[in-house]
Amino acid sequence: MLQMIDRLGQLRGKVLTMANLVEKALDGSVRVLACQDELEARRVLDYEDAINTLEVETDQLATELLALNQPVAKDLRFITAAIKINSDLERMGDLAVNIARSSIRGDHRPMDIDTTEIPEMARRVQAMVRDAVQSFESSDDERAKRVLVSDDGVDEIKNRMFAQLVHGIEADATVASVNVDLIFVAHSLERIADHATNIAEDVLFFVKGLDVRHHRTSIDGKS
Amino acid sequence: MLQMIDRLGQLRGKVLTMANLVEKALDGSVRVLACQDELEARRVLDYEDAINTLEVETDQLATELLALNQPVAKDLRFITAAIKINSDLERMGDLAVNIARSSIRGDHRPMDIDTTEIPEMARRVQAMVRDAVQSFESSDDERAKRVLVSDDGVDEIKNRMFAQLVHGIEADATVASVNVDLIFVAHSLERIADHATNIAEDVLFFVKGLDVRHHRTSIDGKS
Repeated sequence: MLQMIDRLGQLRGKVLTMANLVEKALDGSVRVLACQDELEARRVLDYEDAINTLEVETDQLATELLALNQPVAKDLRFITAAIKINSDLERMGDLAVNIARSSIRGDHRPMDIDTTEIPEMARRVQAMVRDAVQSFESSDDERAKRVLVSDDGVDEIKNRMFAQLVHGIEADATVASVNVDLIFVAHSLERIADHATNIAEDVLFFVKGLDVRHHRTSIDGKS
Repeated sequence: MLQMIDRLGQLRGKVLTMANLVEKALDGSVRVLACQDELEARRVLDYEDAINTLEVETDQLATELLALNQPVAKDLRFITAAIKINSDLERMGDLAVNIARSSIRGDHRPMDIDTTEIPEMARRVQAMVRDAVQSFESSDDERAKRVLVSDDGVDEIKNRMFAQLVHGIEADATVASVNVDLIFVAHSLERIADHATNIAEDVLFFVKGLDVRHHRTSIDGKS
């Protein structure tokens, strides 16, 4: 049997491989958004496929580690964090595929995103994902905190975009289909940012032992 | 220290309490949909608040169990499944709140859902959640499999509803805002069904040791 430290390194490596694939899938989906290229969309699907396979392997490895090595303290926190991060990464892959799918639906190309805040939103979300992955890679709690702070800005852009896109439809019903797709693109980007936030919270948990989840919000969505 | 079997029972109890709160939150959000009652919407938010608190407690208990009791085999599978189910239940609570929020936005009441398939979709999703929770409660793999089978029907309704609601906007742009909210209600219901499916998969995993995740789909969304 490998030493505990080697097995933890293996687990870390698998999560990082998945995280890098998620970054590629997200970058690909943002390119599909910009150019509606079907070949690129298929590549996003291939990444998701690889991510799904890794998700199952990562869970197996984490469970084996729990069973055979009986870890405690920080090692145990790392393994339970890896189980959760694994699940977040898998969902981020799905959301990248959703963005690619929304972008290549046949009935409304080309889709002009440059008149929207989607490119800015995508840039911010890509930066959050990169920070979340790097905070995991280097156990960097300061970088993890930066991810948490960025989430509010993304939510604000999403809310503005929703309102603008609905008003756009009210002014011209022929854009209904494309604007609803763009609303879902914004929604998917915001969800990816939420999962990046979850990852940052998990990094804070295993590095610092802090649980920073859940702030109460009111029913109208304001904090 | 309590015996392992008592501690596992505690963990099971916490997950079931959360699951029951999620069922109440979902039932409440469906009532809000039907009658746009703000008081009921606030109750849904209270359920979510309780769910969030329980999520943190459940994770802590599961981590303690892993650290102090060093479980193996089926007990270990149960604990890792509980960690994942915990996370699914928390997200289901969020989605119930989203449904309640979409339903009480001030600018388009009353919202007539009886001309849509939302009531039928909601009934199916409520049944899936009930089956998923009961399959967990009684370690019933047959009931868990029933949840997996139901998911396709919910996806079909959602796709039909999306198309109808977008066509509705194209025919009459003044319904844009309410129809976009209804599209998100359908999306949230479908996501709740997905989480119920995840729970059923986790039940199959801890009862049978089966991993039934991930079936490849093509980029146009067809299986």
